[in-house]
Amino acid sequence: MSQHGLTPDEINAFLREAFPGGAGAAHVEAADGRRAVCRIRYNESQLRPGGTLSGPTMMALTDTAVYALIFSAIGLEPLAVTTNLSINFLRKPKPADLIAEARTLKRGKALFVADVFIRSDGEDDPCAHAVVTYSIPPRT
Amino acid sequence: MSQHGLTPDEINAFLREAFPGGAGAAHVEAADGRRAVCRIRYNESQLRPGGTLSGPTMMALTDTAVYALIFSAIGLEPLAVTTNLSINFLRKPKPADLIAEARTLKRGKALFVADVFIRSDGEDDPCAHAVVTYSIPPRT
Amino acid sequence: MSQHGLTPDEINAFLREAFPGGAGAAHVEAADGRRAVCRIRYNESQLRPGGTLSGPTMMALTDTAVYALIFSAIGLEPLAVTTNLSINFLRKPKPADLIAEARTLKRGKALFVADVFIRSDGEDDPCAHAVVTYSIPPRT
Amino acid sequence: MSQHGLTPDEINAFLREAFPGGAGAAHVEAADGRRAVCRIRYNESQLRPGGTLSGPTMMALTDTAVYALIFSAIGLEPLAVTTNLSINFLRKPKPADLIAEARTLKRGKALFVADVFIRSDGEDDPCAHAVVTYSIPPRT
Repeated sequence: MSQHGLTPDEINAFLREAFPGGAGAAHVEAADGRRAVCRIRYNESQLRPGGTLSGPTMMALTDTAVYALIFSAIGLEPLAVTTNLSINFLRKPKPADLIAEARTLKRGKALFVADVFIRSDGEDDPCAHAVVTYSIPPRT
Repeated sequence: MSQHGLTPDEINAFLREAFPGGAGAAHVEAADGRRAVCRIRYNESQLRPGGTLSGPTMMALTDTAVYALIFSAIGLEPLAVTTNLSINFLRKPKPADLIAEARTLKRGKALFVADVFIRSDGEDDPCAHAVVTYSIPPRT
Repeated sequence: MSQHGLTPDEINAFLREAFPGGAGAAHVEAADGRRAVCRIRYNESQLRPGGTLSGPTMMALTDTAVYALIFSAIGLEPLAVTTNLSINFLRKPKPADLIAEARTLKRGKALFVADVFIRSDGEDDPCAHAVVTYSIPPRT
Repeated sequence: MSQHGLTPDEINAFLREAFPGGAGAAHVEAADGRRAVCRIRYNESQLRPGGTLSGPTMMALTDTAVYALIFSAIGLEPLAVTTNLSINFLRKPKPADLIAEARTLKRGKALFVADVFIRSDGEDDPCAHAVVTYSIPPRT
């Protein structure tokens, strides 16, 4: 197992293979161990009543962005699992691509903590903000 | 707009119509204003590395369970929106149906707060626990 | 170090010694490894504008209740530390004793997760609900 | 009631008066409506087992920093109340002053959301990160 951080291309290839059904539909645009940027393309199935994008769409994007951030920081760890995710929905996103920017808050041996801002493509104000903790399996 | 709580059948009919793409795939089995139970059928697309069900599957189910709980408590409010969702993943669920049980913690005029236990079908120990706040639009 | 759960008396004695300045002012009334009940006596210094008890008073009580619950479950672990605490304030507590009831959600080797209801003495409706994760240091 | 943001001096004067018992012991060093910085002086009563500062000390500082931020943004609103506070403890703070930096995430009519980084004086890495939601009473 790699002890070096993965590149965005390597992470995208892994996500496509690990989530063939499309749960890996988010695309990693940047990832350098301290920060990762993921985009999810807009499609109508993301809509919820009110003409805005659904919470689960943003939560899935959040979770993937931190998964990608961890791979870029410590290498491939498919068995890293989310232990806590707390998200605040701040503004209703319009029907458009969503972009998540994850930043490392703590890179511990056992726990990895990051925060995530989600914005609509082209907007400055975030539509959601989350803090996510992953548990990293011990290296053997 | 109804001032009375919806029945499970009414909520299921609404979810099917509002989320035609299947985001409403969770089925409401019980809902009485204080407690709602939702089930999501297992399918392979919910799997993640490690052979367990993905976090986003559980987060979407959580969100739907509280949406249903609110409808059963105060009637149809399609524009109720999640403002905060915090979830702890406690145990890795096996490949099986997931059942969410949501309970009302606070029924305010503006904010509705509930907690949710998620269990694998037939299991006692929860695989996740969440607390969710929805904002209720003002009645006009 | 004890491998057995502490009794409420043992926990109270430890808290008095470990927090001589009074941060251990909460009193453990019950604790059996699955559930712990702590009470904090009302005093005027807990008040905040509006004539209600302050958030920090409730947060400190919450944290102590889970600390006590862990000791009752796995024995004395003074170096157990909170990694995450998420609290929702549901109703404004009147000037009165506060009682916290903590329940074990997960007793893992490395992480201990509990939820906590806080009520005013004599009231049924909770004034706050929290979920707390502690990190348990490895046994050597 | 002021419709303009308070200055740090005005906020400090209010906190001293509103919390005579010292719960307002945090000192506001800066506050401009988008960002507020609060410092709490180290004293031994903040210690917990392990020689580190207690979680409740950091939680109280967090809560005060956002209270100050709101006053700097919208004027004096003593009855603004915390509805949700979620904190991750990232590193054990040494015995030293703690500094909280709060930043506005959302300034809504009814809800104000901010995140807070807490650092030991002179350190770069945060020892805690929190997200806090306050409910703002309606202007009449």
